[in-house]
Amino acid sequence: MTGLFITLEGGDGAGKSTQAQLLTDWLEGEGRTVVRSREPGGTEVGVEIREIVLHHRGEIAPRAEALLYAADRAQHVATKLRPALARGEVIVQDRYIDSSVAYQGAGRVLGADEVRNLSLWAAEGLLPDLTILLDLNETDARGRLDAANKRFDRLEAEKNDFHARVRAAFLALAASEPERFLVLDAAASVDTIAAQVRARVAALL
Amino acid sequence: MTGLFITLEGGDGAGKSTQAQLLTDWLEGEGRTVVRSREPGGTEVGVEIREIVLHHRGEIAPRAEALLYAADRAQHVATKLRPALARGEVIVQDRYIDSSVAYQGAGRVLGADEVRNLSLWAAEGLLPDLTILLDLNETDARGRLDAANKRFDRLEAEKNDFHARVRAAFLALAASEPERFLVLDAAASVDTIAAQVRARVAALL
Repeated sequence: MTGLFITLEGGDGAGKSTQAQLLTDWLEGEGRTVVRSREPGGTEVGVEIREIVLHHRGEIAPRAEALLYAADRAQHVATKLRPALARGEVIVQDRYIDSSVAYQGAGRVLGADEVRNLSLWAAEGLLPDLTILLDLNETDARGRLDAANKRFDRLEAEKNDFHARVRAAFLALAASEPERFLVLDAAASVDTIAAQVRARVAALL
Repeated sequence: MTGLFITLEGGDGAGKSTQAQLLTDWLEGEGRTVVRSREPGGTEVGVEIREIVLHHRGEIAPRAEALLYAADRAQHVATKLRPALARGEVIVQDRYIDSSVAYQGAGRVLGADEVRNLSLWAAEGLLPDLTILLDLNETDARGRLDAANKRFDRLEAEKNDFHARVRAAFLALAASEPERFLVLDAAASVDTIAAQVRARVAALL
């Protein structure tokens, strides 16, 4: 069997973790070995980096932040993702290069192209076979987070205009690579979204 | 007064810290405000990054390592070095871009050019006014470290051929930018080296 690399993207509260778990369960039912992962924090080194980027008290310079995410990615790709793909496994992952471009590129006003180039250098060019973008308008996203009474990390605490830029950047990325992206309305029911995801993944298996 | 950015480079055991301290004392005697710093670890975020790159148990992928050093540098330049230079202060610093090129570029067999470009992006182009390279042959360097009975960190524990590549890379960097570099024989006496450093810095003040 050939390895398959699937990423889920979108703002916090869009339902990425829920859909990733449903997809993982379905794939395992189909007899595939699945690696559930995330960025940042998919490796031991990554967990330490994640702690810095999400929970450091005090200013982190925009380029330092972008480089920390890239370091996490380089470690993840080299030590976990490429070996899994070489074994023919399926990776189901929360966030990857597109999050970097959307958050650090558009959100932090570094150039999207330079952040993308930095990420691709870190990943030695590895792109997903499929990226599922769960698109949710900002008001609903904020409402979901508030309802969950979740502890806000540094990025989640940013203002709404930041999230609006991030959402627009995700949609622009999807439009520029329509074959890699599946864009779904995150306001639909969990079951509806899960069925759409399965249909697309089944076609790739 | 204009700010001045001075870096000290060379292998471990070459005497960088000793010379940095002597230069700092002399500059303060001349009435200058001096920022003594180092990389990695010149900021709060940098201290956390330094802990990962120097003391993580287990493999760190070469690109992840290069990106962690670059993240440390980006934070350091943006939040500490540029503000100090803008105030007209003198920075005396252990290690900077040239160490990244020598260690990650030549030592780890990533390309020197890509590591340099990564560093320059992190630093938004900031280069030192003067770089003092304390050049010591590998046998003497190893002897000094052994004599000090110092706890070896991950890089110091690398084999001699690694250090030989690093030393050659430092010398090549100095040859390519002779105006920025002052290359001194680290086997000379502390006083002799300190006098040579002062003479060159005095000319820049």
